Amino acid sequence: MAAVDDLSRLLAIEEIKQLKARYFRYLDQHRWEDYRSLFTDDLVLDIPKTPEPRRDRDQFVDGARANLDGGLSIHHGHTPEITILDDTTAEGIWAMEDFVAPDPASGRSPFAGAGYYVEEYRKVDGSWKIAKLSLLRLRRGRRRR
Amino acid sequence: MAAVDDLSRLLAIEEIKQLKARYFRYLDQHRWEDYRSLFTDDLVLDIPKTPEPRRDRDQFVDGARANLDGGLSIHHGHTPEITILDDTTAEGIWAMEDFVAPDPASGRSPFAGAGYYVEEYRKVDGSWKIAKLSLLRLRRGRRRR
Amino acid sequence: MAAVDDLSRLLAIEEIKQLKARYFRYLDQHRWEDYRSLFTDDLVLDIPKTPEPRRDRDQFVDGARANLDGGLSIHHGHTPEITILDDTTAEGIWAMEDFVAPDPASGRSPFAGAGYYVEEYRKVDGSWKIAKLSLLRLRRGRRRR
Repeated sequence: MAAVDDLSRLLAIEEIKQLKARYFRYLDQHRWEDYRSLFTDDLVLDIPKTPEPRRDRDQFVDGARANLDGGLSIHHGHTPEITILDDTTAEGIWAMEDFVAPDPASGRSPFAGAGYYVEEYRKVDGSWKIAKLSLLRLRRGRRRR
Repeated sequence: MAAVDDLSRLLAIEEIKQLKARYFRYLDQHRWEDYRSLFTDDLVLDIPKTPEPRRDRDQFVDGARANLDGGLSIHHGHTPEITILDDTTAEGIWAMEDFVAPDPASGRSPFAGAGYYVEEYRKVDGSWKIAKLSLLRLRRGRRRR
Repeated sequence: MAAVDDLSRLLAIEEIKQLKARYFRYLDQHRWEDYRSLFTDDLVLDIPKTPEPRRDRDQFVDGARANLDGGLSIHHGHTPEITILDDTTAEGIWAMEDFVAPDPASGRSPFAGAGYYVEEYRKVDGSWKIAKLSLLRLRRGRRRR
């Protein structure tokens, strides 16, 4: 942490916690343009196979919209482990739990799961954004909740 | 944040996180007088309709006691977004998830839900308290859990 | 807090939050030696009766391994209340929620629960560790989730 003094490091950790808080809230409030704004435009993704490809920010955001609009989603994040690497780069791990009840018209079944986000963050024009998002699942399966 | 230096802001954010942590713990431990002490005496409420009115702090606390005593409740808060406005006022958003199994004698059904608290905080005699509480629900329904 | 200046206190609180974050993650990732390293070697335990005794760190870690290896576990922690007592001692309360689906070969049933960890922490050779762990349960019962 030599590159960043303690106070600056704590401020950056709090800013990144609030960035990820908005990630979960905008996702479940289906605020798609606000959600898109949380990622760098060169977002790197490493997520389990999904029916549609998820190769870049727009495919990621548009895929979430296609899966969640008209349905109910609840995504919660827990116990962040944020490491500030320097003034503009950081990495973090978040425990997550999710429940999705798709639009009944979609014919898709509700599912729930849990796992971890492993992420990289970059400060762009004074704002921290998610630059890389990996998802490691502990479970994912159909279920009522 | 000009009005508040960075260290004071981080200290206030941590104090408000611990205030809300006690809110959830005292509620689920049914410590009603401790719970009442977390709110300003002029608490403003904006919550979904409930069988009983919730117009002020005492109606809010006494209503919670009436609903939860003799039963089991689990309320958890996630990913706070706390903004310090000045030395004595702040606002915040918390994701929440709740499960309530009322006293079997009440004949009421268990329910569970999720949503967001949108709150205002005020520092009174050196202690942060909840001055306004709004609840936005994503879901609320009967269910076993 | 006279013994600890505000910045040092905030740094210690963040370090202890990340210690407990690793506690949950290593437990659910079944990384038993990493998990063991999070406790002082004189760990004090106060947990509800379990089939096997839990009298010291190794019995605690080995018991968790015996219960969870081959199965799925999800343990999440919420809304920490961390108090720094001096430069090397602290205490904290965490809300928790757990779900365990044991190795099917064990014949044990899945269970889920919620409650609180009441803990003490000690800084040893520059690293915060869990020195005492008490678990207060609100509920524990068989259930699918």
